[in-house]
Amino acid sequence: MANIQGIAASSGIAIAKAYLLETPDLSFEKITTATPQVEIERLDKALEISKQELEQIKAHTKENIGDEHAEIFSAHLLVLSDPELINPMKNKMNEENVNAEAALDEVATMFIDMFKNMDNDYMRERAADIYDVTKRVKAHLLGVTFPDPALIDEEVIVIAKDLTPSDTAQLNRDFVKGFATDIGGRTSHSAIMARSLEIPAVVGTKEVTSTIQKDDLIIVDGNEGVVIVNPTEEIVATYEKKQEEFAKQKQEWAKLKNEPTLAADGEQVELAANIGTPDDVLGVLDNGGEGVGLYRTEFLYMGKSQLPTEEEQFTAYKSVLEQMDGKPVVVRTLDIGGDKELNYLDLPKELNPFLGFRAIRFCLDNEHVFRPQLRALLRASVYGNLKIMFPMIATLEEFRQAKAILMDEKEALLKEGKEVSDHIEIGIMVEIPSTAVIAKQFAKEVDFFSIGTNDLIQYTMAADRMNEQVSYLYQPYHPAILNLVNNVIEAAHSEDKWVGMCGEMAGDAIAIPILLGLGLDEFSMSATSILPARTQIRDLDKGKLASYKDELLSMSTAEEVVQFIKEKTE
Amino acid sequence: MANIQGIAASSGIAIAKAYLLETPDLSFEKITTATPQVEIERLDKALEISKQELEQIKAHTKENIGDEHAEIFSAHLLVLSDPELINPMKNKMNEENVNAEAALDEVATMFIDMFKNMDNDYMRERAADIYDVTKRVKAHLLGVTFPDPALIDEEVIVIAKDLTPSDTAQLNRDFVKGFATDIGGRTSHSAIMARSLEIPAVVGTKEVTSTIQKDDLIIVDGNEGVVIVNPTEEIVATYEKKQEEFAKQKQEWAKLKNEPTLAADGEQVELAANIGTPDDVLGVLDNGGEGVGLYRTEFLYMGKSQLPTEEEQFTAYKSVLEQMDGKPVVVRTLDIGGDKELNYLDLPKELNPFLGFRAIRFCLDNEHVFRPQLRALLRASVYGNLKIMFPMIATLEEFRQAKAILMDEKEALLKEGKEVSDHIEIGIMVEIPSTAVIAKQFAKEVDFFSIGTNDLIQYTMAADRMNEQVSYLYQPYHPAILNLVNNVIEAAHSEDKWVGMCGEMAGDAIAIPILLGLGLDEFSMSATSILPARTQIRDLDKGKLASYKDELLSMSTAEEVVQFIKEKTE
Repeated sequence: MANIQGIAASSGIAIAKAYLLETPDLSFEKITTATPQVEIERLDKALEISKQELEQIKAHTKENIGDEHAEIFSAHLLVLSDPELINPMKNKMNEENVNAEAALDEVATMFIDMFKNMDNDYMRERAADIYDVTKRVKAHLLGVTFPDPALIDEEVIVIAKDLTPSDTAQLNRDFVKGFATDIGGRTSHSAIMARSLEIPAVVGTKEVTSTIQKDDLIIVDGNEGVVIVNPTEEIVATYEKKQEEFAKQKQEWAKLKNEPTLAADGEQVELAANIGTPDDVLGVLDNGGEGVGLYRTEFLYMGKSQLPTEEEQFTAYKSVLEQMDGKPVVVRTLDIGGDKELNYLDLPKELNPFLGFRAIRFCLDNEHVFRPQLRALLRASVYGNLKIMFPMIATLEEFRQAKAILMDEKEALLKEGKEVSDHIEIGIMVEIPSTAVIAKQFAKEVDFFSIGTNDLIQYTMAADRMNEQVSYLYQPYHPAILNLVNNVIEAAHSEDKWVGMCGEMAGDAIAIPILLGLGLDEFSMSATSILPARTQIRDLDKGKLASYKDELLSMSTAEEVVQFIKEKTE
Repeated sequence: MANIQGIAASSGIAIAKAYLLETPDLSFEKITTATPQVEIERLDKALEISKQELEQIKAHTKENIGDEHAEIFSAHLLVLSDPELINPMKNKMNEENVNAEAALDEVATMFIDMFKNMDNDYMRERAADIYDVTKRVKAHLLGVTFPDPALIDEEVIVIAKDLTPSDTAQLNRDFVKGFATDIGGRTSHSAIMARSLEIPAVVGTKEVTSTIQKDDLIIVDGNEGVVIVNPTEEIVATYEKKQEEFAKQKQEWAKLKNEPTLAADGEQVELAANIGTPDDVLGVLDNGGEGVGLYRTEFLYMGKSQLPTEEEQFTAYKSVLEQMDGKPVVVRTLDIGGDKELNYLDLPKELNPFLGFRAIRFCLDNEHVFRPQLRALLRASVYGNLKIMFPMIATLEEFRQAKAILMDEKEALLKEGKEVSDHIEIGIMVEIPSTAVIAKQFAKEVDFFSIGTNDLIQYTMAADRMNEQVSYLYQPYHPAILNLVNNVIEAAHSEDKWVGMCGEMAGDAIAIPILLGLGLDEFSMSATSILPARTQIRDLDKGKLASYKDELLSMSTAEEVVQFIKEKTE
């Protein structure tokens, strides 16, 4: 038995045997053969099996996750049927008498190198597709198993170095009971996906792949961030009990689904959810969300070969607004750049992308991208309670310019005879320190603020949260962060504006009492965090928490803050 | 005649003909020859001339700039005498009957590729040396001129795409009257070097190299940031008059060399200088510096193949302290990482180096690097008025930990019977927003603050100042920056501590009245900015400027601030 400590990424407890998601050994010998026809037939067979598998994975993904995620496998299938790729392999076998592995590898490598060296992200992605797909074919030639998380058909815990978006897209909730990875943090992609899929997960363990063997019995404790390998029966029994308790707790939480969010002293706040696609709204409503506090529109632009049309966007926005049925929906305009790239937009390679040309900076400079999104939003506004939010605002000039473009499009639409709501609130993300510092000046001009703590913390501490060597500086409870958050809330309230928060911090059990005391109006989080948060808030006295404000804001370290708040809320 | 607008990087006016610092066309034909011996002789001759040139450049650099800068050319000379490199070239000519150009190129390329692909920065730098040196030899084989800025022996304006540190190291102030570049900003390396060499310079023009021809008559106006190409006689006369006026103004400034820095209402502040090496102290004293506000110790670690010894460091620190003769000297401990790399320390490649593992973060994790520097500083402390400053402090824990290590080394030295001053102030750079926000908490524990605006601005605005697409967000006068600076000053003064500023902003004519009004105690800048600043401050009424504080801090944009301060100080 071994206990491995990691980062609690998604709550809940899972017990099942290990499924190791790893690429098998694909090394081979290059052989000269007297029977090229045999080799060609071997290749054809491997291609055929690979195609069948990919069709199956595609159907699976479509059914379990959604159409958009399944599209990547259509691209892979096209590669396998491309005569420009397959014929040269066959020629090689015929002319050079080499075995199928060598012919496949050499031709694929040639194309990959060629595409990779093109100064074009789209072609580079084609190189990645060929790489992915030929690995699968090679595995079949060599008779080794190629892992297909989409095809898992028994209950397992997935163990991996890291999970890519395409890996997580394939996980089937019916069978994948939990996962544990070597790398990643609470805000890494795989952690966010785990919470959205409601799969218990522990990330950043550094050692699960090296410690765990196939079929080991595994407990993933996503509440405490622990992975237990081959537990004793006693331990299993303890965790099964914990699992039951957690299930009971979830039932308790569920009772609050249609209740307002009230603190012990009767003060009310709003609990909203962060979403990425119209499909996510179901989860928001299921979990008692009172609104959408952050609709990330990037998914509309990703995994495509060109910009989404105004019409496509309109359909998505309208769908979310209609499903939310009058509840507030805060849509953030396009936030690309930084760690989020789009193949078809030729964004510059930057030395420090997190301090670079992204989000509103990019949009103000590329109105042909920005305006269609604003038009789609304005047109959708009549179908619900829309609020528009600009990301990465660092100066008032940027906000004024973005708002002017929005007003310009509104006027144009009205002239075209289109309907536009007259009650759209226009706000900004507060995720850059400058904006938090002079929130008072901003509060006069915006309708609302939403504090994006993920970025605000990393800029305020000057530490890239994805960089493991400095991730200890990603400190949500650092007194500087609390002072900035307080400054934003005070500024907004002095102008009768509301303040939300849509970073991970808003759903964090230690942060919630602090934020409630500081007067935050709206907490936007992963849908699955809403009911636990509502339960927690019912036991908190907002007035009493507010009385700790001065003491909290004058503390020196994050550690002091955590200790203090734990004492006061026990 | 053409006027090219750029960024004023170093003040003064220069008029001279253009010297284009550009690499000539080094393309060649690979030829088969019947007389390899002739080719070998051609190579030997080209090597010989190259060696002579490099010896000359090395001597020149040593005399005009200093020993350390000359060392790079010793490395280049070693390459040219290396039989491991030269013999394979000769063999190639003998055996393959190719011409000298081809033999040189093919062998050099092989070595460069080999070294470049080693996972070791030191070897990669060797690749760069071979590349530099063989370019020179090839130029001689082809009979084309290779530009040697060190050998310029008539008055010129240097025109270049950009100037590397090694280019600027070679510039001879007697002949290089000014320079203009296509790229760079006010805080780029070449701009800082220009101010330290007191050469008028305009950078970031985008087009000087494409517009200007060899021997064109050029005016560089480093006060206004303008480059004039082939001016009329009338224009030349106007600028000669301006040049005279500037010379007169400099004489006026010089009168204040030994005067205290007094505002019009008698309030006193301190004007100090930023330095990089002991050689820079002369310029500080010549320009009436009242102290060293920032001694960047990185130069001790750069251009070397291993860490400097404690003894080497001690010698440098002692020299600066002795030369400053009791005037305060603020030494910043090692600030590497980010844009500053060291070959022999295997620093990680990072996605966002400016938000990464650098400065105090690196030092606290690498005590074998940190402790020898602290020991050297402590030992040097008895030779003058030393203050020690830690860079990139984001949390109080970091400061406490760094101070504890310092105290530990002090105790160790005292036990060894070494002398250490009892009056060393220990302070921090304020360059991370978190530290500026909770300056009040820090002020209880540090002896002083020095605000590093270059970094503070880029983190507060979340904009990499080296990234041209977002450099418009590098706004020193942004109200958020002023609020943070004010917060630091108020926090320090409430605990009777002093505050300096050592970013470019401290020497900026628009910032000076603002900072004086906010109560900044020490302004540390390029040595050549000190006398103009002292002159400016004599005309400013500190009390009156202080009365604008609330109004300034509640402004909305940098533009408003600039307009306001211009009006008030006209």
